[in-house]
Amino acid sequence: MILASASPRRRAILEQLGVTFAVEPPDVEELEDGDPSELVVENALRKARDRARPGERVLGADTAVVVDGVAFGKPADIEAATELLRRLSGREHEVMSGIALCADGAERSDLAVTLVRFRELRDEDVDWYLATGEWRDHAGGYAIQKRGAALVDSIQGDYWNVVGLPVPALLALVPDLLRG
Amino acid sequence: MILASASPRRRAILEQLGVTFAVEPPDVEELEDGDPSELVVENALRKARDRARPGERVLGADTAVVVDGVAFGKPADIEAATELLRRLSGREHEVMSGIALCADGAERSDLAVTLVRFRELRDEDVDWYLATGEWRDHAGGYAIQKRGAALVDSIQGDYWNVVGLPVPALLALVPDLLRG
Repeated sequence: MILASASPRRRAILEQLGVTFAVEPPDVEELEDGDPSELVVENALRKARDRARPGERVLGADTAVVVDGVAFGKPADIEAATELLRRLSGREHEVMSGIALCADGAERSDLAVTLVRFRELRDEDVDWYLATGEWRDHAGGYAIQKRGAALVDSIQGDYWNVVGLPVPALLALVPDLLRG
Repeated sequence: MILASASPRRRAILEQLGVTFAVEPPDVEELEDGDPSELVVENALRKARDRARPGERVLGADTAVVVDGVAFGKPADIEAATELLRRLSGREHEVMSGIALCADGAERSDLAVTLVRFRELRDEDVDWYLATGEWRDHAGGYAIQKRGAALVDSIQGDYWNVVGLPVPALLALVPDLLRG
């Protein structure tokens, strides 16, 4: 299988599952506006299509943090990260991942949604987290699998989706994944 | 802080949060029978007390997988692991962790409960997972943070509790943990 993604998190999840794969980061223009649940699936398809070719199975994925119906990717700067963390504080948001598989002309895709509830963050919590620098490289400005664990109260759904690649959805899309 | 636990998972979670701590595995007799929610808290207290001394904060923890009201620790052998995985297949169980902090004679403790829903496992899924050997060292016979991720459909609550140390409960017990 080919993973059409530059994300080290997606790579780590496939490695954790023992899957054999190669990495080929895609070169595509990603949609940024529109209905978040359609956006992430369309972007996953664009990434997979970009690397698709005969005889290969190509996996694409796209993840966004959705709050008040708006999809947030990686914050542009520390001001945007600060504003977003304050917005997520003490409430629930959605993490949506689209995944897509292109194999010999056929395309399949799916959407995974996990609810994440943040702890009530004090100003010092936000400052502490911004100082870790994790906001830079992560959709929604936090990394649940790193120091960002301290921001989260609870989740409902697939944990791996929040990290960046939904595992049960992937197993449904690629039933022989673990034995492939 | 002193972590009174031999668990590499608990150590990894504290490291992930950037906490400074020393490890001192406790030498205690653990309760194995009784109400699971009382059992894990009592065991966490026993572990913390075993290493407690003036001038130190000592953290103890105990985790069990609870299904049909019965607490399961690490399976005794592969037959027990097989039976337990089949029992968990396609349904929800609870993961309970007790945590306890002893500091200068004062004791505080808390309980965290996360619901975990397993995928419907075919015989080949169970065989695949048993072959990983992960059942040996983990309460309930699976490791959600390793290949065991492929067994889980969804969770409800704190993910880190399923790994072995509940993070929001710990932050409530030790409010200055991240800046300590």
